[in-house]
Amino acid sequence: MTTIIWPKQFSPVEDAENIKKACQGWGTDEKAIISILGHRNLFQRKLVRLAFQEIYHQDLLQQLKCELSGNLERAISLWTLDPADRDAVLANETLQKSDPDYRVIIEIACIRSPEDLLAVKRAYKFRYKHSLEEDLASFTTADIRKVVILQLLVGVTSAYRYDGDEFDETVAQSEASTLHQEIHGKAFNNEEVIRILSTRSQAQLNATFNIYKDIYGHSINKGFPGGDYFSTLRTVIRCIRDPKKYFAKVLRSAINLEETNEDALSRVIVTRAEKDLKDIKELYLKRNNISVDEAVAREWSGD
Amino acid sequence: MTTIIWPKQFSPVEDAENIKKACQGWGTDEKAIISILGHRNLFQRKLVRLAFQEIYHQDLLQQLKCELSGNLERAISLWTLDPADRDAVLANETLQKSDPDYRVIIEIACIRSPEDLLAVKRAYKFRYKHSLEEDLASFTTADIRKVVILQLLVGVTSAYRYDGDEFDETVAQSEASTLHQEIHGKAFNNEEVIRILSTRSQAQLNATFNIYKDIYGHSINKGFPGGDYFSTLRTVIRCIRDPKKYFAKVLRSAINLEETNEDALSRVIVTRAEKDLKDIKELYLKRNNISVDEAVAREWSGD
Repeated sequence: MTTIIWPKQFSPVEDAENIKKACQGWGTDEKAIISILGHRNLFQRKLVRLAFQEIYHQDLLQQLKCELSGNLERAISLWTLDPADRDAVLANETLQKSDPDYRVIIEIACIRSPEDLLAVKRAYKFRYKHSLEEDLASFTTADIRKVVILQLLVGVTSAYRYDGDEFDETVAQSEASTLHQEIHGKAFNNEEVIRILSTRSQAQLNATFNIYKDIYGHSINKGFPGGDYFSTLRTVIRCIRDPKKYFAKVLRSAINLEETNEDALSRVIVTRAEKDLKDIKELYLKRNNISVDEAVAREWSGD
Repeated sequence: MTTIIWPKQFSPVEDAENIKKACQGWGTDEKAIISILGHRNLFQRKLVRLAFQEIYHQDLLQQLKCELSGNLERAISLWTLDPADRDAVLANETLQKSDPDYRVIIEIACIRSPEDLLAVKRAYKFRYKHSLEEDLASFTTADIRKVVILQLLVGVTSAYRYDGDEFDETVAQSEASTLHQEIHGKAFNNEEVIRILSTRSQAQLNATFNIYKDIYGHSINKGFPGGDYFSTLRTVIRCIRDPKKYFAKVLRSAINLEETNEDALSRVIVTRAEKDLKDIKELYLKRNNISVDEAVAREWSGD
């Protein structure tokens, strides 16, 4: 799935029939399913799903759920979903866990475009009858450090940022110093940090981060105090600053774990495949002297 | 404008020509302009504006700005704008003031539907190259009571609520008691109040307010502590609970002031005319023994 070439001509009906065939008989022909769906783009996958529904009166995703299992089922299902719907599923999936991976939420909130983020929130509401912010905010915890993390997450998820290129140099100056003060100050104060990171546009924030580096001589992400809140904050900043570099790091840490973090791995591949996976792979190769494909192939035993 | 009857057949070109005529010569024929635009619905006004642009290569709103003045100019301009764009202008207008009327923001955030609120935020970004939440949140103030008010406003403005009818009785129970605790408790704690009011759906909140009344024997809006924060909070609750009753009260207090609050008056009339102004007027009459029309006519000298 990491290097996808779409066929220009394809028949959704034939694809649907071939997938059905692969599901019949003793054992599922997983390779056949991957070789079909893995080589269809978003629009083509939609057509295959429609054709499958039309011919067999059955949802393709339900069929795959029955036939496949584990990580493969998860990856193929996510891949078959619409991007906004897929993000809604990913967000809900992590919020159901006792120890949610907040990176999923931060990626959706800080890397998707404002309109794409909206589409995710719409899809989430439609699926779960709650708003995403609502589910996020209603996590209750007695741990004040966790409360602050949730406030930060609700802040960035609620954002509907300006997405133009214009920014204000004076605001960048003043907010660079506010950020420094609150991150490195002794009073544990996070309100302004959350306000700035969850309302300013990407262009404005990047201007602020650049000025921060000029004033303090190091990147805003260096020298953070320890703890979960600051690690979440760093993720937010990295997602806003340089999504590709961020994803390359997520891939590396997912693969380098003793037991590979398959969720993170498939999430990055599936959500970026049709966007910037090529660039992320180049960055990965440059930094790790091994290609993602090789590393992934090793982990996924060739699937 | 308070009782509008739309003509079924009308000519945008004739309207544009008649408005142009009313603007020519010595003095503007204000009554003619009102009698035209005041009797066209949203779609018809859009067509008139397009026809005006087509014939005279001039924006109708700019023309009106030159010809009319003061409150009349403001009301007719607001009336001629698209609802989402109009709300964006109203919000920005009040945020420019040294003493903003936060009711404008609360009405937009809590009374418009989730999709309409989004349309306002889109229009705001397009006009002002900032997001509405950004402009709201970047008000800086040393007054902690004001900071809390701004947090509440940013919260409700950022909301993208679930707008279905489903709600959770258990959540309503628990959040009714949380609200009571935070509003009437001794610790000045507002985080949970803001979280609840800015993420829960209208259906969920109304269930919570009803249970509140059952448990504590009085409406949630009774017996509030004094101060600006609680008065803002009360406005939020009133807007969510019963928008029509809220607007009837805004009208009454606008008219009953020694110097009529023309901004509030025209805001309610213009923004509700094509929605529920009829019901608001009925409520007003029932509670004040005088019709809005009479009261408005008195104030607006017949315009």
